[in-house]
Parts: sequence; structure tokens; C-alpha cells
Amino acid sequence: MADSVKVLIGGADAELLAQVRALSNRIELVSAEQVEQRPELIPELEIVYGGLSRARLPEATGLRWLQTGGAGVDGLLTPELRARDFIVTNASGIHAEPIAEHMFGMLLMVTRRLAEAWDQQKTRQWKGYDFGASVQLLAGKTLGVLGVGAIGGHSAKVGQAFGMRVIGLRRTGEPHPHVERMYRPEERLEFFRESDVVMNSLPLTENTRHTMSWEEFAALRPGAIVVNTGRGGTIHTDALVAALREGRVGAALLDVTDPEPLPEDHPLWAMENVYITPHYSGAHPGYQQRAGRIFLENLRRYLAGEPLVNVVDKTEGY
Amino acid sequence: MADSVKVLIGGADAELLAQVRALSNRIELVSAEQVEQRPELIPELEIVYGGLSRARLPEATGLRWLQTGGAGVDGLLTPELRARDFIVTNASGIHAEPIAEHMFGMLLMVTRRLAEAWDQQKTRQWKGYDFGASVQLLAGKTLGVLGVGAIGGHSAKVGQAFGMRVIGLRRTGEPHPHVERMYRPEERLEFFRESDVVMNSLPLTENTRHTMSWEEFAALRPGAIVVNTGRGGTIHTDALVAALREGRVGAALLDVTDPEPLPEDHPLWAMENVYITPHYSGAHPGYQQRAGRIFLENLRRYLAGEPLVNVVDKTEGY
Repeated sequence: MADSVKVLIGGADAELLAQVRALSNRIELVSAEQVEQRPELIPELEIVYGGLSRARLPEATGLRWLQTGGAGVDGLLTPELRARDFIVTNASGIHAEPIAEHMFGMLLMVTRRLAEAWDQQKTRQWKGYDFGASVQLLAGKTLGVLGVGAIGGHSAKVGQAFGMRVIGLRRTGEPHPHVERMYRPEERLEFFRESDVVMNSLPLTENTRHTMSWEEFAALRPGAIVVNTGRGGTIHTDALVAALREGRVGAALLDVTDPEPLPEDHPLWAMENVYITPHYSGAHPGYQQRAGRIFLENLRRYLAGEPLVNVVDKTEGY
Repeated sequence: MADSVKVLIGGADAELLAQVRALSNRIELVSAEQVEQRPELIPELEIVYGGLSRARLPEATGLRWLQTGGAGVDGLLTPELRARDFIVTNASGIHAEPIAEHMFGMLLMVTRRLAEAWDQQKTRQWKGYDFGASVQLLAGKTLGVLGVGAIGGHSAKVGQAFGMRVIGLRRTGEPHPHVERMYRPEERLEFFRESDVVMNSLPLTENTRHTMSWEEFAALRPGAIVVNTGRGGTIHTDALVAALREGRVGAALLDVTDPEPLPEDHPLWAMENVYITPHYSGAHPGYQQRAGRIFLENLRRYLAGEPLVNVVDKTEGY
């Protein structure tokens, strides 16, 4: 089969495998187990969708296209892999709804004091006054969406429905229907000065590392709430901890941290107004099926010689 | 001052009192302290905005208009008071944003497993897999808005922004721009059969008592989530407890209960998937100011002989 295409699919369900097989008889499916037993297959792989560890990726010298199951590729693209000419596609887009829901859930847990109410429930006490006196209202606040991609755009829409004023920061500065004012990276301090709530869903690239650092935290409105579901490294952790201690940041709601996992002795774990969820904001029922559909569509395009969707710019890093 | 109007304002801030004085020189302000010291003033009161206990309300035989600071009047309107001809107005409308935010906060706390993550944070563990495997997605679910007034309408708007299908149940059956399909009370079982999430913000009246009882809980989709910020008595508590035990209700998120406060030995306190906040969902910064503005506008109308806003239908009870 000179014309055959070796495709490695790791951990796929039977339905996806059947759909892949039905697509073309040129496809030669390889499983993670086969690769494990016969590593000499790795250089022959043309397409990889899971099933190969990052450490072994350099061995895939025949690779033409890599589909990832997640969104961020910051841990994947070493300088060597960037220099090679295979295409990288991700599953960006399927995370918009779960991550926006996660961010608003964490935010409302703080503004409505629900974590404290949950702690009090365990003592079977009915005392609402303290909570009622210290809640905050989203309506009327300014939501600063940091990184207006699929996740940020959906968050902007929800924020508007809640009655928030929504501003955004985007590399291109391109407008968005749910963002009242879009800032460019060079205007970022003004963006932070305007935000009561910052929702950060930035990917980690050379440009986005420490997007929120000493200067940016100093610009924030006192008591501002910072939500991060992008990558921990987009925030300078020491600067965040200092801003929390000074009360400049009112609360930090973190699904991602730097370092990650957060070490047991890290101060963030026990700081007042810090809420941590261990990197699962993108998870949702049907995740694998939705990611699989992106792969399947791309495989169809690949075989037909059409351009793929969700192509990662290997230089930009997302 | 034969033409003077005695107005009792309890616990008002100086700004409101000044605004009231500026409105007309016919107004004779009475404070809660004066009433306390000289109860013989009570029959002379023409207008009451706070400062008089429910128990003493029957003594206000000269009352023409009662403005409340809340929304529900179920505890206030005894049959005797209903029969009298004074007007009752409430502060309905100012609760829409805080209560909708509270309901979505409680809902997302459950669907994103944030309460469990908060418990785990105290142990400084980074374990996201279990949470990620059991989260739920709001997008695509059906939100049943039970009672489509100001609160329900705003909740419908937010639900739509999250990508939910929104249906409603309303006494009049009148359509609403953010509700895809509106049901009437006689179609309520169908409404419950369609709902993945029920958001209940009903007032308590003779018609709404036990709107959700045995039959309604039996109609719910298995695993449906029930949120109640209206009045505890709109739900039959024993039927709810049974439905939770059978797993028919997946979670109950209650800001109001029946009885209320919930007694220490009540089973709801410790049931799995029951989250209780002690009746503060309507609280928000600026509450008194916003309620005060409604009173002030109504006072202007009263003195000018114009119809008041936010008039409660004493027969309907809301």
C-alpha cells in the first residue's frame, strides 16, 4: 500500500474508529498499544491524534499532521518541533461554553459568598445577615476579557446578559459584537485600570508570559477580581500574591497556576479570597466526542487536500 | 396643619429623609423612635415605609398607603389587612439582578463541582480528574423559569446567553422575549417534564402554595436541578425530600425553605446535593438606596394624586 496513510489514534472510542475507517480505505489505523510494542512504527506515522507521549514526538520523523485534544500547545512545541514542517491543529472552540460557565461559577461563588454559606451549612446555622451585607452585584461592574477568542467571546456575551459593561484586550484589537471597547496590548494598563473583574483565558506564548505582572496589578482597581483559566504562566505568581496581600486584588479564582500542580506549601492554597480548582474548567460531558468530530472533519479535509481547521500558528504558539 | 401628611420612615438614611422633606412642606416626618415612645401616633399615620412591626400594623387605622422594602408580602397581609382599603406597594424589580446572579451562582457551583473543589482546596490537593469527569454543561440544557416576573425574566435572558433553551411558566401565559415557550399553570406537568433546571422565584399566594408537590416532582426529568429563591412554601418540602432521596431531583439549591429558618434537625441540611443559603439572594450593595428611590417616586405620585407604581394586588397577594 504505497498510497496508505498511517494514522495513530490514542484512546478513541469505537464509534470514532469506525467513522475514520469509513472515510477512506487508504487509512491504516495504528493503536497506542501497537506503537508501544513496535516503536519502529513511529517514524512511519503520518497523522497523530493522541496515543504518543510528548517525549516520543521527536521520533515521529514522518509526521505531517498532529491533532491535539486540548487547546493549549505551550507544553508541546519545543523549538525543534516548531522548526519542522508538520501541521498542528487543536480542539479550540469546544472549551468556550464549559470554561465560561466555570469562570462565572467561580466569580459568583465569591460575589454571592456561596463558599462561606456552604461552610456554614455544615453547622446547620441559618444566619444570612453577614452574607447579605457583603455580597457584590455583577450588574453594573466592568468585565475585562483578557484574550477574546472563543472562550473570551462567550464570556463577554454572558457578562453582557448579566448587565456588566464588557471591555476586551486582544492582540489584533479587532472588535467583537459583545465587547463595548477593545484594547490592544500596548493599551493594557488602561484596560486593567477599567476592569472590576478580569477574566483571563490567554494561551501561554512568548508574548503572553506574565501578561499580568507587577505593573498590571498596580494598575488594577482596588478590590478587582482576577479569574484565570488560561495558563498559569500568563500571570506572575509572586506579583499576584503580593497584590492579594495588599488587598489590591480582592479575589483570585484560579483553575491554572504557575507552578502547576501547585505545591502543597504554596501560600496561594490558604490565602483569603483565593479559590482554586485543579485545571478542569474545560471538562464537560461529550468532550471526547466533540474533539473527535474536529479530528474527523480535519481528516476528511487532509485526505481531500483541503486546508485544515483549527490550525495552530507554530510561531505565535496558539 | 390640617393638610399635613404623617409619614413614618424607619431606618432611612439622611439623604432619603432630606429628599422626602424637599418634596413637599405638607409632609410631617415621624421616626420609629417617636412611634415607640408615643404609640398614640400610630392611628394618625397616613403613610408607612418601614419602622412599624407587623404586629402593630392593625393599630394604624388611618393608614392610606404602605410601602414595603421587600418583594414578598405573604407574611404581611392578614385577612383583616386585606379587607382594609389602604394601598400596598413593594420594592419588586430591584431584586432581579441579585437574585438571578444568586441562582446562577448556586447552579454553577453544583454543575462545575465548585463546593467540592473548595473542600478539597483546604487539604491542598491538586486532583482535578474526578471533578472533570462529573461536571455538567448548562449549554444545551433546558431551563424552566417558574414565575416569569422581573427575576424570572432576567434569569431567562442570562440562561439564553449561556446557550440554554429557556421555557417559562406564567399565570397569564403571556410571552416573553427571552422565553422560547411559555406554559400556563394548567400545563405545568408538561413544563416540569421539559425542564433540566427549574428556577423558582414565585411569590407565596393561595394559588402558588405547593406549586411543586408530589405530582410535579414525579414529572421532573431524572436528575433535574431545582433552585428556589421565591418562597419556601411554593414547594412541598416532604415531596422534595422524597424526590431527592429517590434521585429524581439531582440537586436542590435553596435560598428559602419551609419551615424557615430551617430547624437544626431538618434532613435537608445534610442531604447530598442540597445547598442552602439563608435567605439573602436579594441582598446587594445599594439595596436601601434603590428601594428608597421607589418610595420617593411613589411619594411624589401620592402627593400629586397620580397612580402609584409597584402596587400589590391584595387579592392575588403579589
